[in-house]
Amino acid sequence: MRARDLAQDFPTVSLDSDATEAARLMAREQLPGLIVCDGDGRPYAVLPGSQILRFLVPRYVQDDPALARVYDEKASDELLSKLGRSTVRDVLPDKRDITEIPVVDGDATTIEVAAVMARVHSPLAAVVENDRVLGAITVRALLDHLLPS
Amino acid sequence: MRARDLAQDFPTVSLDSDATEAARLMAREQLPGLIVCDGDGRPYAVLPGSQILRFLVPRYVQDDPALARVYDEKASDELLSKLGRSTVRDVLPDKRDITEIPVVDGDATTIEVAAVMARVHSPLAAVVENDRVLGAITVRALLDHLLPS
Repeated sequence: MRARDLAQDFPTVSLDSDATEAARLMAREQLPGLIVCDGDGRPYAVLPGSQILRFLVPRYVQDDPALARVYDEKASDELLSKLGRSTVRDVLPDKRDITEIPVVDGDATTIEVAAVMARVHSPLAAVVENDRVLGAITVRALLDHLLPS
Repeated sequence: MRARDLAQDFPTVSLDSDATEAARLMAREQLPGLIVCDGDGRPYAVLPGSQILRFLVPRYVQDDPALARVYDEKASDELLSKLGRSTVRDVLPDKRDITEIPVVDGDATTIEVAAVMARVHSPLAAVVENDRVLGAITVRALLDHLLPS
């Protein structure tokens, strides 16, 4: 089985997409992450849901969980609902911190797909042919293919 | 909203569970990861799908993706289907490398839940009361709660 055969339709967002809409898309479609494309439609990054939370939660709360207690229940819900006017670009880590994008060619074998997901700790890999995103393979879909009941 | 109100029923596995069955459960139920409990039923780790791939893909292939090409299509599918007799314990990283388990109390606020997911890059957090796993909150469920359409 090759990557192009395992690829499923998968929504992409752009760097300038609205971050709130992107997060809603992820939640609504039950996606483990989103493929972010640059202006030319080429994959730029994969945005996992936990990265959105990293953007939303103040740094000092991430560093010291006890500080989360300064927010009561209501303030906590409100703080986190404020993605506001942020774009996907704002939410992504610094370009310097994106060491590798989980992308494979259409003719990649399952081990190549698994290797990139394992290395990047990514819940999905984008499948690309001729600079175009064909779709994505999720870890779950790959496990399902490799370990039939 | 408190963690106990957001917690959903979520399957747990034990350290001695069969790794193949655990991976199949993850794929079948479309789970982003599994809660692994110790012998006393307390959370020991969260096992994301990509960790199973890290266990399956030989280290030298993870380090140098080009080496994946030594496996043809069939060998690749076969290699990865060989979780064999491994247990969940085998698949987990070394205990020393598990720095923090994404676990929250039932009365944790949404920001506490988000903070632990963000810090550990986890797709879910286990919700625990009286040393018992009540259920789990996934990143998607949290985003869905925080960003209603």
